[in-house]
Amino acid sequence: MKLYDFGPAANSKRVRMFISEKGIEVPVVELNVRDDAQFKEPFNSMNPFHCVPFLELDDGTVIAESISVCRYLEELHPEPSFFGCTAEERAIIDMWNRRVELDGFMPALHATRNNIPLFKGRVVPGTRTNLEQLPAMVQRGKEMLDIFLSRLDPQLAVNEFVAGSAISIADITCFFVINMANNFEMEIESRYPNISRWHSDFSARPSTAS
Amino acid sequence: MKLYDFGPAANSKRVRMFISEKGIEVPVVELNVRDDAQFKEPFNSMNPFHCVPFLELDDGTVIAESISVCRYLEELHPEPSFFGCTAEERAIIDMWNRRVELDGFMPALHATRNNIPLFKGRVVPGTRTNLEQLPAMVQRGKEMLDIFLSRLDPQLAVNEFVAGSAISIADITCFFVINMANNFEMEIESRYPNISRWHSDFSARPSTAS
Repeated sequence: MKLYDFGPAANSKRVRMFISEKGIEVPVVELNVRDDAQFKEPFNSMNPFHCVPFLELDDGTVIAESISVCRYLEELHPEPSFFGCTAEERAIIDMWNRRVELDGFMPALHATRNNIPLFKGRVVPGTRTNLEQLPAMVQRGKEMLDIFLSRLDPQLAVNEFVAGSAISIADITCFFVINMANNFEMEIESRYPNISRWHSDFSARPSTAS
Repeated sequence: MKLYDFGPAANSKRVRMFISEKGIEVPVVELNVRDDAQFKEPFNSMNPFHCVPFLELDDGTVIAESISVCRYLEELHPEPSFFGCTAEERAIIDMWNRRVELDGFMPALHATRNNIPLFKGRVVPGTRTNLEQLPAMVQRGKEMLDIFLSRLDPQLAVNEFVAGSAISIADITCFFVINMANNFEMEIESRYPNISRWHSDFSARPSTAS
């Protein structure tokens, strides 16, 4: 098994953080996506959606998508669980991970990609195009992110972690949402004290240095 | 168990289609989200993210998010499988469902919500706000949708279904992406013949009338 990865990419960091939390080791092949390595063969055929990270199994099967990679690794190494141990736990964790990802991560990602010069020509993940950076995508992304934060804060007022009393994949996803939100100076500390408490606790975990 | 549902909503249709394909029955409570029933109690507390459908278990636990509801139902009724029977199958299906949802469904959803008068004041799912409909969200949504379609078509040239040789949850998600794309007149029949073949086959399934 090999993980094709690019150090600075947020999705790569998500998966590395998961691997660190699980206490496992996965051999890594560095793929410099800033130099467009993902569009060259054999990588283009391995992952025609051109995003890192992706996992190549020993039989050549490729699993792309950060959460799908983590799900697969969890099946091989069930403990400690990040996706839940019962049908009900798995559904609740999946629900929270989706809320965090669809309502928080995606708006923040698109706001970031349409905002900073580094992503010029790469506004859509896994592409090199002439699509312009649209200020409206930044505006709407920040507005959606703020709606998400206002819904997350009450959950973290009564729960230690995003999906309840135990750490889960939803916390890892959420850690990167809050990091992106902080780049947009959304005043989380003063406006969302429970998210701020959670983020401060979570930032102390050794896995965040992965 | 009860499914809180609103007939015309695309996400409600997704879950009903899944239930029909599984050959199971789930009691349904109709919640008229166009009349803002989801913001009133007890529904507001049951699902503070205010989207339908959501499932209430007999112990009061609420599972929201369409895919999380389907995952839970699949655990109760494993056959026929829509999420895979082995770790590898589950990862590949999850990967394809994510590609379809993040790269196709979400851009199409936001393009739709920022485009048609019905969604004025409801541009963000599960909200009533003054956020305006942004033409740039429609433009970018269509551009992203087109990138997705151009990547999906080769997959359907060599596979009967989205995630391979067997039907999966990724097909159900994709069916609604193509329906939304057709509303934007993206000329799928002439430009993406394999998607067109798949959509035509899929449309013949009785579950699409759910």
